Amino acid sequence: MKVDGVHHRTIWDEDGAVRIIDQTVLPHEFRVLPVDSLEAMATAIRTMQLRGAPLIGAAAAYGMMLGMGEDPSDPGLARSLAILEATRPTAVNLRWALDRARERLALLAPVEREAAALELAREICQEDVATNRALGRHVLDLIRTLGVAHRPVRILTHCNAGWLATVDWGTATAGIYMAHEEGLPVHVWVDETRPRRQGGRLTAWELGKHGVPHTVVPDTAAAHLMARGEVDMVVVGTDRTTARGDVANKIGTYAVALAAADNRVPFFVAAPSSSIDWGLREGADIPIEERSPDEVAWIRGRTADGESAIVRVIPEGSPAVNYAFDVTPARLVTGIVTERGVAHATEGIAQGLRRLFPERSGS
Amino acid sequence: MKVDGVHHRTIWDEDGAVRIIDQTVLPHEFRVLPVDSLEAMATAIRTMQLRGAPLIGAAAAYGMMLGMGEDPSDPGLARSLAILEATRPTAVNLRWALDRARERLALLAPVEREAAALELAREICQEDVATNRALGRHVLDLIRTLGVAHRPVRILTHCNAGWLATVDWGTATAGIYMAHEEGLPVHVWVDETRPRRQGGRLTAWELGKHGVPHTVVPDTAAAHLMARGEVDMVVVGTDRTTARGDVANKIGTYAVALAAADNRVPFFVAAPSSSIDWGLREGADIPIEERSPDEVAWIRGRTADGESAIVRVIPEGSPAVNYAFDVTPARLVTGIVTERGVAHATEGIAQGLRRLFPERSGS
Repeated sequence: MKVDGVHHRTIWDEDGAVRIIDQTVLPHEFRVLPVDSLEAMATAIRTMQLRGAPLIGAAAAYGMMLGMGEDPSDPGLARSLAILEATRPTAVNLRWALDRARERLALLAPVEREAAALELAREICQEDVATNRALGRHVLDLIRTLGVAHRPVRILTHCNAGWLATVDWGTATAGIYMAHEEGLPVHVWVDETRPRRQGGRLTAWELGKHGVPHTVVPDTAAAHLMARGEVDMVVVGTDRTTARGDVANKIGTYAVALAAADNRVPFFVAAPSSSIDWGLREGADIPIEERSPDEVAWIRGRTADGESAIVRVIPEGSPAVNYAFDVTPARLVTGIVTERGVAHATEGIAQGLRRLFPERSGS
Repeated sequence: MKVDGVHHRTIWDEDGAVRIIDQTVLPHEFRVLPVDSLEAMATAIRTMQLRGAPLIGAAAAYGMMLGMGEDPSDPGLARSLAILEATRPTAVNLRWALDRARERLALLAPVEREAAALELAREICQEDVATNRALGRHVLDLIRTLGVAHRPVRILTHCNAGWLATVDWGTATAGIYMAHEEGLPVHVWVDETRPRRQGGRLTAWELGKHGVPHTVVPDTAAAHLMARGEVDMVVVGTDRTTARGDVANKIGTYAVALAAADNRVPFFVAAPSSSIDWGLREGADIPIEERSPDEVAWIRGRTADGESAIVRVIPEGSPAVNYAFDVTPARLVTGIVTERGVAHATEGIAQGLRRLFPERSGS
């Protein structure tokens, strides 16, 4: 999408090198980072210089290209796969991209692997953009259905399932950008999303840069906004969704879903099929990443003088806990929006997903 | 309660001057602030140098003493009452304390008003401590009932209904301090409570200073902790509770109550009778204060060098919204704990409150 009028993607290759947007310094600084080794890509994923399930998939494929440039042997292939797989445990796209890389590269001669990995990375990027565009059209239809004359459709989102979480367009945001570009008025309530504030830092930044009206709200205010009748729909992304429709997504999503249910606000999950774990039925079986308590205790921002600063926000000596994700049970989900259409609660989420993806039903 | 082994209250008078603990610089700095004029007290309440419904009541009474020292005439009395009443709209204790001051002072000769206001302020402080002690014993009974051998009782709280929100003991925390002092093991999950982080700043600080085991959690994680079965009970405070049991409390309380209900975790509200608005039935009628968006956009903390710094945490140009409170409907409340006992959902919250306070039933 656009940054100050110029179109950008979150990851690309240029003269054989990989470039990413460093998401840890947003929203106050826009910095393009060269990533020139397997280790650097693993670090970028682990430290969340890039994040978002679909983007992690693309980054893992580019990581394989860098790994194959360093050591394309069979042990080198196994090592690259293992290093990348260990970076983040919850996002299923990571495993999905690495499975594709393994299949594609294992049968090739080592000398062909770097070029094949580059080709795969580009393919995954193109597919991601096409998927988000298709998924976005279905979200756009939902927005149109809710459209009210003379006022914007008010959409609440949590975390960042925007273009920064993908290669372009975003999952939850694709339909919002499309509505905005068609002149259908929208207003986005952006949940701050503590502790890492992907909403307040990233979603607010990308919506602002693209010109979409929005307001940042503390996570604590989402339920109150719904109780006041100020939210027409919720759309969030997902890191991993089970075949039955249990949704692992950024910590706090479950609470948003509870508030939506209590106030009869439709709660939609934008889930490209690559984020669906067809082999899993129970959300309780999804591994939940626990991250450093420092992400709760310290906050990065910018002083009034324009300096970047990191400040401690809880007492010295107070411990903190930092679960990265939670699981929203399928019973709270109004619909799962995929690139092929919407699995609605009215038909049963599991049935809907089987209808949309019959080829995966047996798996 | 204790700060580094020394007993403190949040407000007191010394040689005719009022002293408070400045809560805006906690947890990184412990600063006692002299408050020497009506205007200074109004500012302290408005800027939340002191906060918490019971403490605001005591502060308003001391504010009346300062106002009567400046101008004890009838117009001066009316002016002092009006200035203090305008500071915070939601806490009912403010109005309650000012009503008592009006009744007590109006019939006196101007020359007697300053001394009478001081006497009233001290009375309100003593009553607050006695009320919290009585209320705490009922919370302690609930903790004992939930007590499990060989592990601590795990209690989640939101915002700060601790001793910093009162003159001493706290409302939600009084029973927790009592359990801790009796050697009944407790562990407190402290919701950070964005935007002003009264949990992460104040509750964590006071529990830590008194030696009570606790862990800070982002607001987004409370529901997940309950889903994991790691919370035995929730206890929160209230700024204003209706006769039917609808509870206005810090923004985010409603979401905590929804998560508790979804996971069958008992949800208790510590409500001294001074925070019950007997004339109101509907929570929807409680005025909800909207504060400056700067409280969402900027965060104060301490750098690794020990410097205090205020940083912007959302993009320049992104608006924010800042509701200070929300309303938790009575249907989500397991029990309202008062200084006279508990109004349980099993008997009906409204009926329970009438049983405990028969003299208020007619009002």
